[in-house]
Amino acid sequence: MACQTRVSEAVIRRLPVYYRHLQELEQMGVERISSRELGDKMHYTASQIRQDINCFGGFGQQGYGYHVPSLRRHMASILGLEKTYSAVLIGAGNIGRAVSNYKGFEQDGILIRAVFDKDPDLVGLNCGPFIIKPYDELDEYLEQNPMDIGIIAVPAEAAQSVADRIIECGISAIWNFAPVDIQHPDSVVSTHVHLTDSLHILTYLMNEEALFNEIDARAKVAQIDAESEE
Amino acid sequence: MACQTRVSEAVIRRLPVYYRHLQELEQMGVERISSRELGDKMHYTASQIRQDINCFGGFGQQGYGYHVPSLRRHMASILGLEKTYSAVLIGAGNIGRAVSNYKGFEQDGILIRAVFDKDPDLVGLNCGPFIIKPYDELDEYLEQNPMDIGIIAVPAEAAQSVADRIIECGISAIWNFAPVDIQHPDSVVSTHVHLTDSLHILTYLMNEEALFNEIDARAKVAQIDAESEE
Repeated sequence: MACQTRVSEAVIRRLPVYYRHLQELEQMGVERISSRELGDKMHYTASQIRQDINCFGGFGQQGYGYHVPSLRRHMASILGLEKTYSAVLIGAGNIGRAVSNYKGFEQDGILIRAVFDKDPDLVGLNCGPFIIKPYDELDEYLEQNPMDIGIIAVPAEAAQSVADRIIECGISAIWNFAPVDIQHPDSVVSTHVHLTDSLHILTYLMNEEALFNEIDARAKVAQIDAESEE
Repeated sequence: MACQTRVSEAVIRRLPVYYRHLQELEQMGVERISSRELGDKMHYTASQIRQDINCFGGFGQQGYGYHVPSLRRHMASILGLEKTYSAVLIGAGNIGRAVSNYKGFEQDGILIRAVFDKDPDLVGLNCGPFIIKPYDELDEYLEQNPMDIGIIAVPAEAAQSVADRIIECGISAIWNFAPVDIQHPDSVVSTHVHLTDSLHILTYLMNEEALFNEIDARAKVAQIDAESEE
């Protein structure tokens, strides 16, 4: 995500988190929730919640909280989840297989239509419900079947050339699983799945206490030094 | 991530992003970078960058920018990436296979030691460089080989019971790929990989222009209505 957006990247990153929590609340049968309760659940402040929601025009909180199913639908519509999208998956390795087998995407309206791979040993085999097609036939396929989203699940070194190719074939939205940033024109949108980010947050959390013990101890020494100089 | 942390969740979420960009800059041979240049690259403001870095004690920007390799190492140490961690992977499905095959984790000091699965058809087969062990033997294995991190890559309905079990066996850090939130005591830390979040951000970006055209048009109508009432 590196394009010019109408709302800040921080707000955009929170939108799917709202959506997930609202889905959960709706499934639990919760009818109404105040911005404060929603904030507590998501570890944001009530005022941040109200500000975020107001970024997209008013959505009335009628004194006694948001109506959960309405806010969930509102959020789905902001996220573009009320439409359906056709997608082509390039790369039938482990990540590609996991993606093509994951049932949740279809609920969100993402319909994978075909899977391509370069490896002749994989072509013709199954990948989820698909028969893997040869990468050589991608251009022709996309010409006959224009797709909304290209899912890139190839090794790092192949990712840019795959991106260039599908963009040339008219795809303007890329979901990138390759561990490398992809360059593309501003007319194309993309998001990048960084598995290591959540791993690094985990190792941070594992070490936070020790880290701040050290920082606090250093600050104390600095203070003692400063006082002894006075 | 739902525990009490010393810095805000928003700051913590940005740390891996800093680390990635600094790694990239270092690999490109960049020696120094100002908070402004780093901000431009990451789409944050210079002041946010300085504030974030200052959360962890001072890190001098000496008039002419941050020293990239030093800041990269500083960030690695904040993220706990200067240590090594042993990990056990539960679930040898597509996600489990992708994780066990991914070489990048080892660079970060995450050493997967064993892979377990419940499915008797999978036990004994290879999963990356591992032979899949039976889930029944997990307790005994963890008793003899205490692990730092448990990686959960099982279906949603099995995730909580796997989490309960590994926590009981002494694991206090969970990297969860199952599409469901896991409950655990405060003494345990966890992060959750939500693949759909990045997909929802992508669909948002695909629709943002149309969304704001609609919001702007509604606002205009509301303004005209208000003016005609005056």
